Amino acid sequence: MNTSLCDCAELKKEHDPPDSPNSVGWVKPYKVILADSSNPLPLDSGVNLAPVTVEYETYGELNKKKDNAIFIMHALTGDAHAAGWDSNWKILKRPWRNDRPGWWDNAIGPGKVFDTKCYFIICANILGSCYGTTGPWEINPVSKKPYGLDFPVVTIDDIVRLQVRLLDYLQIEKLRAVAGGSLGGKQTLTWAIKYPDRLKSAIILASAARLGAQGLAFNAVGRRAIFKDPGFNNGQYYNSTHPDAGLELARMLGHITYLSYDSMENKFGRRMKNGDKPSFQLEGEFSVEGYLEHQGRSFAQRFDANSYLFLTRAMDYYDAAHYGNGDLEMAFSLMKAKLQIIAFSSDWLYPPVSAREMARAAVANYRPVSYHEINTCYGHDAFLLEIDKIAPLLKEFLSNV
Amino acid sequence: MNTSLCDCAELKKEHDPPDSPNSVGWVKPYKVILADSSNPLPLDSGVNLAPVTVEYETYGELNKKKDNAIFIMHALTGDAHAAGWDSNWKILKRPWRNDRPGWWDNAIGPGKVFDTKCYFIICANILGSCYGTTGPWEINPVSKKPYGLDFPVVTIDDIVRLQVRLLDYLQIEKLRAVAGGSLGGKQTLTWAIKYPDRLKSAIILASAARLGAQGLAFNAVGRRAIFKDPGFNNGQYYNSTHPDAGLELARMLGHITYLSYDSMENKFGRRMKNGDKPSFQLEGEFSVEGYLEHQGRSFAQRFDANSYLFLTRAMDYYDAAHYGNGDLEMAFSLMKAKLQIIAFSSDWLYPPVSAREMARAAVANYRPVSYHEINTCYGHDAFLLEIDKIAPLLKEFLSNV
Repeated sequence: MNTSLCDCAELKKEHDPPDSPNSVGWVKPYKVILADSSNPLPLDSGVNLAPVTVEYETYGELNKKKDNAIFIMHALTGDAHAAGWDSNWKILKRPWRNDRPGWWDNAIGPGKVFDTKCYFIICANILGSCYGTTGPWEINPVSKKPYGLDFPVVTIDDIVRLQVRLLDYLQIEKLRAVAGGSLGGKQTLTWAIKYPDRLKSAIILASAARLGAQGLAFNAVGRRAIFKDPGFNNGQYYNSTHPDAGLELARMLGHITYLSYDSMENKFGRRMKNGDKPSFQLEGEFSVEGYLEHQGRSFAQRFDANSYLFLTRAMDYYDAAHYGNGDLEMAFSLMKAKLQIIAFSSDWLYPPVSAREMARAAVANYRPVSYHEINTCYGHDAFLLEIDKIAPLLKEFLSNV
Repeated sequence: MNTSLCDCAELKKEHDPPDSPNSVGWVKPYKVILADSSNPLPLDSGVNLAPVTVEYETYGELNKKKDNAIFIMHALTGDAHAAGWDSNWKILKRPWRNDRPGWWDNAIGPGKVFDTKCYFIICANILGSCYGTTGPWEINPVSKKPYGLDFPVVTIDDIVRLQVRLLDYLQIEKLRAVAGGSLGGKQTLTWAIKYPDRLKSAIILASAARLGAQGLAFNAVGRRAIFKDPGFNNGQYYNSTHPDAGLELARMLGHITYLSYDSMENKFGRRMKNGDKPSFQLEGEFSVEGYLEHQGRSFAQRFDANSYLFLTRAMDYYDAAHYGNGDLEMAFSLMKAKLQIIAFSSDWLYPPVSAREMARAAVANYRPVSYHEINTCYGHDAFLLEIDKIAPLLKEFLSNV
């Protein structure tokens, strides 16, 4: 909270263009059906889901021994497009991909942390999301209309169960690493605990073994904003007005939790749009208001409200202690992978205390663990923004797997 | 954030019944018209407001020298009913007052911190609110319908300007103290800076000279929830469905900011309503969800959505540095009162760093200031809850005024 400790300088935001030697260049997503009526995906809720399609991307090449694959897990509102430039953005009607590369392009590419000259990188859109993998927006084969709220409540376990099917499909026995931040960190942890023989190492960034009460509360308010939007129509809005106002509100609120007190202070402070003379308006006076509204609007243009409901709920339900009958140390005893945990000092959604809890559980089981707490004012988003600080740590860890 | 530091035991919640010797007993509010067309209230926005009515309560007796008056400032959603039991709750249609005394009853009464055997306590509903003092719910004399969004945007200065009129009406030249928490702290600060000859001391709790960007952001999201509620109808909802869903959302969000990470963890954690077995529902699974919904509902039953818009905006606009042309130290040089500032360690809406900023500005002006940082896990609400910890400090300060 002490602004004097941290100047939060603006980070560079240039992207490597597709023709840059540091870029994986133009990429296309793949689609594969991994569950059908003869082989449905069993879910924690008891539902057997079919069909299930997965959209994924890969960068780099799988070597002959098939031991250089790294599976990247995306966060709540991410997608399979982790690096490079999507050559299909027009066909797939994803215009927001026109002017920017994948969400972790600063970490994935030739010579980067996840070096595509050495590693075969996989990233798949998660179950319940809205970027090509089966979710509530898809046609329910029974009702012949979009699932909406009839989509089953999915869990991180379900999400990972589907990712394991993708790995089987790709005929990769063992991953060199699984890595992810935030909700991706929970998926990574699940891989390490539930599928200990399928990965050699796990990298967990800005995450926790479970969400705290404050996080549960923020998610509940965000979902409620969607439910109460008259356009929501019980989740059946695909052929009419979408519940954009509700989804925008949820995102604005979520966005505050991704930043930190200091970074908001430094970026916006109390700056007003029209100088420092108040215009005595109830809205749109302070810069931070305009910024959040912009974030909300652009999010609503690219994300599905139902997916937001289901994926925040998956985040809520996750508690890694379940794997140890309520005991996190017991759960961690199931792991075989080398573990790297990175926390960020100003992350108040998953504060360092949550990350230390995981590190302690690993140590208690004599598991090799590398724990780092990065001093930053960028809050939860630091796992995406502070790549310069975390790259050396990740590189060193990966080179010793 | 470190849960091990704080066990957040449940605080006692019993109330002193009206016949208790520690209670001010049954009380009735007063109403007075303090501005009319011949003497309107000039506002910062340039508007001259009339008529303006104020609802206020008093406890204890004004002495002959009229030097024992203490003016209590209420916070965002508070009212003039600071202590005792409202004998008019039925007539005034305020059923929520039936089973509880005024909002600061644990601090005001015979033998309490604000001892009604010694002091004459005044508390008035603030301009723009909805408990008897003029606000957007009132009939606009021009349009003959409720003001709604035609109510002028009011500032803390305007609120205090009206309070000064009340003091004049009560024929009190100089207050022994002005005291308030949160938004009440900003009013208190304004009294000390703008009306230095009208008070001997100022007590500021859980407050700041200005709201930070994060606080501005939360307020913006809350207001937007109200604006986007289809029942809001541009502020003209008094004769139809009220925008309860929006107001509930705003309150749920606000309520999270009044608690702390630790207190929510300790009070709710991840407890589920039906044991620890998930029911795979998108809503109402975790205890914290039910608690927040209850808070939202009961708030919407007692508060006006338009008042919420206007008073959060007054909170936003407030920046005490204005009084010193942008320089807080300069602003504090105008003060004459003895100052007491109390901050709460886990208050993240007005973190201690903001309170220290005020204390520093006072010290820089050689003003007598008593600064305390209370170690607590109750967050912003601690100024209401931790009365046992702050009472000795307040008592000592008041006895030396």
